[in-house]
This record gives sequence, structure tokens and C-alpha cells, in this order.
Amino acid sequence: MASYKAPRRDMRFVYYELHDGERLAQLPGYEEATPDMIEAILEEAAKIAENVLQPLNRTGDEEGCAFENGTVRTPAGFKEAYTTFAQGGWTSLGGDPQYGGQGLPSALSVLVSEMLLSANLSLAMYPGLGEGACHALEAHGSDELKQMFLPKLMDGTWGGTMCLTEAQCGTDLGLIRSKAEPREDGTYLINGTKTFISAGDHDLTENIIHLVLARLPDAPRGIKGISMFLVPKFTIPADGTLGSNNGVSCGGIEHKMGIRGSSTCVLNFDDAVGYLVGVPNKGMRAMFTMMNSARLGVGVQGLALAEASYQGAVEYARERLQGRALNGAQLPNKPADPILVHPDVRRMLLTIRAYTEGARALTMWVAQEIDLAHKHPDPRRRRDADDLASLLTPVVKAFQTDTGFECTNLGLQVFGGHGYIREHGMEQYVRDSRIAMIYEGTNGIQALDLVGRKLAAHTGRYLRQFFHPVQEFLVAHAEDSALEDFIQPLAKAFGRLQRATGHIAQQGLKNPNEAGAAATDYLRLFGLVALAYQWTRMAGISLEKMEGDTSGFYAAKVATGRFYMERILPQSGAAFATLMAGAKTIMEFPDEAF
Amino acid sequence: MASYKAPRRDMRFVYYELHDGERLAQLPGYEEATPDMIEAILEEAAKIAENVLQPLNRTGDEEGCAFENGTVRTPAGFKEAYTTFAQGGWTSLGGDPQYGGQGLPSALSVLVSEMLLSANLSLAMYPGLGEGACHALEAHGSDELKQMFLPKLMDGTWGGTMCLTEAQCGTDLGLIRSKAEPREDGTYLINGTKTFISAGDHDLTENIIHLVLARLPDAPRGIKGISMFLVPKFTIPADGTLGSNNGVSCGGIEHKMGIRGSSTCVLNFDDAVGYLVGVPNKGMRAMFTMMNSARLGVGVQGLALAEASYQGAVEYARERLQGRALNGAQLPNKPADPILVHPDVRRMLLTIRAYTEGARALTMWVAQEIDLAHKHPDPRRRRDADDLASLLTPVVKAFQTDTGFECTNLGLQVFGGHGYIREHGMEQYVRDSRIAMIYEGTNGIQALDLVGRKLAAHTGRYLRQFFHPVQEFLVAHAEDSALEDFIQPLAKAFGRLQRATGHIAQQGLKNPNEAGAAATDYLRLFGLVALAYQWTRMAGISLEKMEGDTSGFYAAKVATGRFYMERILPQSGAAFATLMAGAKTIMEFPDEAF
Repeated sequence: MASYKAPRRDMRFVYYELHDGERLAQLPGYEEATPDMIEAILEEAAKIAENVLQPLNRTGDEEGCAFENGTVRTPAGFKEAYTTFAQGGWTSLGGDPQYGGQGLPSALSVLVSEMLLSANLSLAMYPGLGEGACHALEAHGSDELKQMFLPKLMDGTWGGTMCLTEAQCGTDLGLIRSKAEPREDGTYLINGTKTFISAGDHDLTENIIHLVLARLPDAPRGIKGISMFLVPKFTIPADGTLGSNNGVSCGGIEHKMGIRGSSTCVLNFDDAVGYLVGVPNKGMRAMFTMMNSARLGVGVQGLALAEASYQGAVEYARERLQGRALNGAQLPNKPADPILVHPDVRRMLLTIRAYTEGARALTMWVAQEIDLAHKHPDPRRRRDADDLASLLTPVVKAFQTDTGFECTNLGLQVFGGHGYIREHGMEQYVRDSRIAMIYEGTNGIQALDLVGRKLAAHTGRYLRQFFHPVQEFLVAHAEDSALEDFIQPLAKAFGRLQRATGHIAQQGLKNPNEAGAAATDYLRLFGLVALAYQWTRMAGISLEKMEGDTSGFYAAKVATGRFYMERILPQSGAAFATLMAGAKTIMEFPDEAF
Repeated sequence: MASYKAPRRDMRFVYYELHDGERLAQLPGYEEATPDMIEAILEEAAKIAENVLQPLNRTGDEEGCAFENGTVRTPAGFKEAYTTFAQGGWTSLGGDPQYGGQGLPSALSVLVSEMLLSANLSLAMYPGLGEGACHALEAHGSDELKQMFLPKLMDGTWGGTMCLTEAQCGTDLGLIRSKAEPREDGTYLINGTKTFISAGDHDLTENIIHLVLARLPDAPRGIKGISMFLVPKFTIPADGTLGSNNGVSCGGIEHKMGIRGSSTCVLNFDDAVGYLVGVPNKGMRAMFTMMNSARLGVGVQGLALAEASYQGAVEYARERLQGRALNGAQLPNKPADPILVHPDVRRMLLTIRAYTEGARALTMWVAQEIDLAHKHPDPRRRRDADDLASLLTPVVKAFQTDTGFECTNLGLQVFGGHGYIREHGMEQYVRDSRIAMIYEGTNGIQALDLVGRKLAAHTGRYLRQFFHPVQEFLVAHAEDSALEDFIQPLAKAFGRLQRATGHIAQQGLKNPNEAGAAATDYLRLFGLVALAYQWTRMAGISLEKMEGDTSGFYAAKVATGRFYMERILPQSGAAFATLMAGAKTIMEFPDEAF
């Protein structure tokens, strides 16, 4: 069995050395986020992840959730672990202190979350959904709703969900049929059936707060007629006690490829009493608040499972004796050499490592910009930060989950046949990581979001927040001979990205299918370049600090960076050539010939 | 639930139109393989696959195999289906008529096998292993052994296995510890434990014939001291009846990610009586006979599951209404358009299609050459054919299973969230197809076989059987304006393959780790070029036959080919650049830093 250890050294590196985490503690509201505090929290979070969540990962997968007598039973141990987790204050790291939250930066939450997801994705999803509900309520709920629901959501007494999907609509939420009927007391009666609801029912919390998309009677058709409602599983009497069943029932759970410890529910709303969140018919806006942070979170899932798989694969590659090094036996006294000697095994391990550390760096960039967008005193800086986060969110979500799945598969492959059997847990990482390419908007939808919305927004304003720093960095280091091996491939790949962007802007105007056909390869290209930029920056810092570092941390950073530039970044050429080929072969293929 | 229909039209195309299947019926021993016979067999095989095997695919996965009272119970319905299959004569298509086989070309077996694997990989593995045992016995067994075992193996009364792996050795068979002690009557006592034995125990046949690798008492160390033994589960008294238990017991079964209806067993041999197959200490040679045909068969698994996944995904893409075409609604009277209108969905479907049809074409080339290698009257032609098959076997195995897994994942992705739940069967194709990248030698091992053995063999003789026809084709069509869009990218990618080959030959001599580090990307490049060559040939034929073809078959062929050349083949540039970067970043990374 793989044994996960939180990569705290690398987390400190991306938080403080690569990105300037110290500035966050200067922002109003984040004063607590001092280096000592951050370090203490990472240390404690690592303990929870390693010792409380991780031991239930395999057993949770084997047992799965059960649907019994109309409710969901989570796997053995989940309730106790969740309680320990909530009582430790881990459900409220980023929450508003006014309602019991700890008001810490999301840059920190992202690191804590990575640890939890590496240790046990299924279990970590339950508090993750509660946190998402908090975000949406904080941003869009009335003061009354906040006071009524936020404290118990934040302390983990209650859980949360996002109820979007219905049988006839996943991606296309304009097709939602669930209805909300206003009542005289200002509440609403909610009716409808929601499907694929993560954490829709479970036994971890005494109540579950559903955020439900539904239509008011006079709502416009399609996406502009959707409103958001808060619907608790059990009613909340005025005294704050737990009331009766509120017309929300679980109709069943899905049997899935992975994340089997996480319940995926059909939820029936039958005259359930709900509260409007935000403005009528503007539910999509409120939902997007939740969805953007959820998308970043899913991007973290990709790298978290890749990290866990990497650690398992390295351990196996050191221990498994099989064959001899191609240059001659390394352990002549043993029956064979460890498989770590084989170039192809090292290639697989370094690929996972390069994607994972690169993704961690990129995620931290976005997370710190999100914190700046929330708290920076200068409105222009806030806008810039928000622009960058908006631009990169679909890249983080899709690129990191696509490559995360590639990585968990490489980890399995290092184990050979032993990876395919359940015992070692490597195939679970593959199954668990597969969902991240789908939920919170499939990766194809992320790519359309990038080319269709993010590129075009405010005539390319978002894009400048990425293109300008890369360009400036390239100019500043044009003569930097120490970084030459990084600058040159970065410049080449960045040039491809610029040309591809121009191509899409031009062709997409004439024919939207051109942008649609290019989208997935463009997002891939964008992700490759974004990681190349992070790797170049990481190498620059590490080259300076390498001398005298006996831990080998910076030397390994530079070596992994070189591997990325030489052996992964060339994919950018293929992505570029593919998308530049245009939509013709895709759109001209006759429908009936498929 | 996806419903598979055998792609007989495309099978006829690759058998007769792309490759010259008619010449096979002229070879001594294959006279029966007339067009009428081939067509009749494909038609009947399709019925068995669609109606007998397919209905048990999902249920077999859900139930899995059970280990009870020391034996394996296969899922409900498997025994009846196997019996129908065997009684229909399907276990002996390619077998020697002297022992009850039907003596048909392996080019036909490959097509039948593809259908069975698409319909139910787990169930199809049982007769597949029996067939493998037949091959090895036909090639290496004594007449006595053949008479004793082949008839009942061929008619499916008995099953077969390949017993190679032990706990301490998978790839590195030199570490085998199982022992064979000669007895006075010429038989041997076999002792040892084998692991990961597919079809090692089951309830489908009355006996199971194990082909076991073990060491004789005086055997040299390592790989040169391995011999092959035939060990029946139950002894065979002289009267041909079924005897007593022969000291072979099943110690348990593995719980796997996929192919859950196929048993994967620990087998204990305790003084089991065995018969030597072939020459002492030359067991590896005999095993390779089995392994080469098994590797081709695994390559077929990759394309078979991709085909099944494609069919499911197309059906869903036609039916699922979600969103609107980017150029404007196509079904304005419906709530949404079918997702088939979206460029990214079409991109996914065409990618599967291009890989699958390309792989079917490549497999058929190799299969017909194998038939020529066996039966052609001219020894030089036999040798050439064998050279090509030897060269391309690792490419077919690894490239087709890597891309097969990519394809089953694309098929799942087309379904979105519905692909991740078990109900639709799409995630099963992903789990089932994952093993094909591992067994019969991991794909990393296939790549080493290609660069380490096949390139170097007889100073490049094997390679010429691929390079020469491609070169000749390029020269012959240099001025062919109709094929220009194919010839140019093929020539470019082929040039990369030639340069990469030179690079590996040169660098690998100096430092074997250079060849090892390049191997996987080289095999990928080889596969991409091999498919590009097949697609160019298919396009050439189809362009000529397109006019007047009302079925649309040839037009779709050309269109899929264009998609392959424009949107898949560019990967060859990335594979080339990656492998040319050399081993440095891989080998210099410090072991302790992983």
C-alpha cells in the first residue's frame, strides 16, 4: 500500500519562494497569515491527511456508499474522521470570521486541500462541498440567510451541496425544469428532481444545505430564467434547533467507476421550503461564484492524485528488483537491480513529477491572485488579479486534470501487473482521478470557456495578465546565460501560443466552429506554456539558491525543470500544428457516416 | 447500454481491398479461405459476438469471478456461452486440421477475435488462452504430446494457460524459481508457485492444460536455464479419460481494476506431473512462439475495445440533446441539438475512428504476413514476411493498446457524467482496456524490444521490410496530385522516423541508456507513421472507388484519413523532438531525489 506524505517543502517553496506569500499577510483581513501560522497549519493539516483521512482511502473505495431505507450510509470510519476533521476547525479555514471562519487566504486553503485530496479524495469532497456553499452564501446571501446558515456550515455541523444537474441537462443548464413557487411568507416551494448530486445525502452531518437552481413561475426561458435557492434537508425552526423533514428525499445513488466513498445522489424536492439566494433569475451568476472556486478545487484534485500516485510509484521503483541496468548490473550481489535504474521507469516518474510540481506552482499563482482580487486595497490591482484568475481557471481545471489522469496512469504503469490489482491502491488513483476531467464542466467545456469567453472578454484584457508577465520575463532574461536552456524553449512555445491566439481570434470571428474545433488543443497548448513559465521561474530561483544547499531540493528542481523543457514541452508543437489545421476535417465529416 | 455491431464492412475492406486476402487462398493449406467462406464465417462470428458474448459483458463485470472451495466460479452465463462457442467450432479456426483444427488463415482469426473481444473481453480471453497453448504445442510439442492434447484443446473441451510469472519475476523471467525434477518414465515433477495466471482456474472446461516455465536441476542460471512443461490440471490416463488431481491447485484470485470476468490466479504446483515441451533449457524460445501471437492478440484488444467504445459514444452523441450548434440551432423545434453538432465531440469521435480503423488496417497487414511466413512456397518470401511481423509485433501491441486506452477514455468523455457511472458500460471499456498496456510485456518492454532487438536484428534487416515499401510508395506517388494531402505529411513523418532510427542506432551503441530513454517515444513515432502509411494507402484505394459509391463507405474513409493526417499525425513531431533530446535529463536526475 502506498503511503502518502504531504510535500510540505515544495508547498512552502511555491507559497513563499516562487510566489510572494508574505505580501498576503499585509492585506487587510489576512494579518493572521504569518509564516509561523502558515507553517503550523501545514504541519497539522499534514497530520490529519496522513493519519486520519488516508487510512480510510482504500477501505472507503472497497466498501463504497450504501443506499439504505432512503438514506446514504458512508463507508466505515468516514463519520468519525469527518467529526475529527470538523472539530479541528478544518472546515472553516477560509471562511468569514464574522460567522466563525478563520479568514485565512485561499492560497493556504489550496495547499491544505491538496493534502486532503491526495490522502482521500472521496472523504475530502464532503467538507469541500460545504465550503463551496459557504462561498456562494457569503457572496450572494442576505444577512439573514448568512446568520441563519453560515455558522453551522462553517463549523461543519451541517454539510452543503450544489444542485444543478437534472436528467435532461448537465452542461446545458438552460434546460432546467425544477420549479420554485413563491409563498406569502417570502419563502418558496421547490419541486423537481436533481441528479448526480455529490454529497447529496450522507450520514456525516446533522443537516445538509442544498443550493438549488430552479425556475420562478414567470421566469424567462433558458439560462436567463434560473434562480438559486437554499433548501435545507431538515427545516430550521426559529430557535435554531433541527426541524422536520423538508420534502427533500434521496432517490438513490449512482454506482461509479471511482470516488466510491463519495455519494452521488438523485435528490427529489417535493414542496420543499427554500429561500431565494441573491436576485431572481440571476442564479447562474451566484452559481458561477461557487463554480469558479470549485473548478480551481478540481484542478487541485488532478495534481493531488498525481502526487499520491508518484509517491507510491517511487517507493515501488526503489524496492522492486527486476532486470539489470542497461549499462551493467548496479547491485551485482542481488538477484536484480531496482527498476528505478531503467530509463523508461525514470521517464515515467519524472513526467509525473514535472506535471505535478508545475501544476502546484501554477495553482499557487492563481490562488494568490484570487486573494489579491479579494483584499488588495487598489481596485486596479484587484481587477488585474481577478482577470488573471478568470483566464487561468479553465486551464487549471482542464490541463491539470487531463495531465493528472495521465500521471495516475503512469504511476500504475510503473507497478506493471501489480498496478492493475486493487491491493496496492494504484488503480484507485486512476479511477478516482478520471472524474475530475468531467465534473464542474467537462474539460471540453473548459476549453470552450477559454476560447469563447475568456479570450474575448473586454477585448483581450484577461489575456494581457498572462501574456505581459511572460513577455516581460523573456525580455528581462534574454541575456541570462544561466537560464538559456529554459528561456529558449519557453520563447518558442510562447510564440506558438501567441500565434494560435491570433488564429483563433481571427478564424473564430468568421466561423465559431473554428474556435470550437481548436479549443481543446489550444487549452493544452496554454497549459504547456503556463507550466513552462512556472518551470522557468522555478529554475531561475533554484539556480541562485542551489549552491550550498545540502538538501538537494533546488538541484532536483532545476533537473526536473530541464526534463520538462526538453521532454514534455515539445508537445506544444503538436498541439499548435493540430489546432492550426482548422475545423474542416471535423465539420465536413458527414453526420450519417459516424 | 451500448450495443455492439461487428464492423464487417470495414473488415472486408482491410482483408480484401487494402491487403490482398485473395492470395491467401492460393497458399497450400489455406485453400478453404475463399471469399464465400470468409464472408460466411464473419457473418456467423458476428452473431456469436453480438448475441452470445455481448449480453454477458456487463453482468460478468458486475459479478466477477469467485474463488470458492479452492476453485474458480466464472460469472453466471459464461459456461453456457463458452459451450455454445466451442460447439460451434470457434475454438479451432486456425488449428492444424490433423488435430481437428480448421486450418484457416490467422488473418481471419484476427478479425473473428476482434469481434469477440469487442463484445466481451473477459469471456473471450478463455478460448484465446486455449488457442495460445495450441500454437505453442503445434510448434514445439512432440507428436505424442500433440496427439494427446491438441484434439481436446482445439475443440475447446480443455482450456489452456501460459504460466510464466512468479511473485519475484514478471518482466525478468531469468529469476524463475519453479523446479522440474525428471522422473524415470520421462515425465517431470513440477514444483513452484505461479502468479497472475489468466484463466489459471475456471469452470468452463473439464481440464486445463498449463504451459509452465520451470528449471531443470542442472539448468544454467538466468534466462538460459528455463524449460517449458505441459502440466494438466487433471492427469490423463492412457485410455484418454479424465484422471485425478495432478497436484495443481489454485491459491486464490486477484481483485482487479477490470477484466473482472476473467480469472487471474495464483497456481501452486506440488509434485505435479509434467511433460517437457521442446528442448531442455530452451523454454523461452517456445514461450516466445506463444507470446508473439499473444502480443498481436493484445494489440487487437486495444482496437476492439476502442471500436466498442466508439459505437457507444456515437449512439449517445446522436441521442443526447444538449446545447446548440455554435453556428445556430440545428433542431430549433427541439429543446436542444444533439451533441454530435459540437466540434469537440466530433473531434473525439473522429480520433477514436482514425485510430481504430488505422489499427485494424495495420493488424491485417501483420496478420497476412504471418500467414505468408507460414505457408508461402518461397523461403525468401517467408523470411521477409516473418521479418515484418517480428518488427511490427511490438508496435501493434504497444501502440494499439496505448491508443486503445486513449480511445476508450474519449468514448467515456463523450458521455460526460453518464460515462463515469457503471450503468452505460463506457467506464468498463476503460478499465478493461487498461490491462492491455501491461500484460504480455508492458508497453515499455515492447518499446525496448523494438529498439533493442528488432532494430538491430541482422543489421537492420527487419526494418527494411517496413522502410522499403513506404519509401517505394512515396516515390511511386510523388506526383499523385489526388493523394498530395496524404503523401506530404507521410513523407515528413517518415523522414522523422528515419532520422530517429539513425539517432538510436548511433547513440545506443555508445550508451544503451540512450536507446532505453528513446524507446517509448520511438515506438509511438513508429506507430504514428505505420498508421499514416495505412491511411495513405486506404485513401488512395478509396479515392478511386468513391465515385458512384452510394453507401458513403469510401468517402468516409477518405475523410477519416484526412483527419488522421491533419490532426493526429502532428504528434510525430513531438515524439521526434522528445526522443532526440536524449537521455541526459532522465539519467542525471539523482536517485535519492526521486
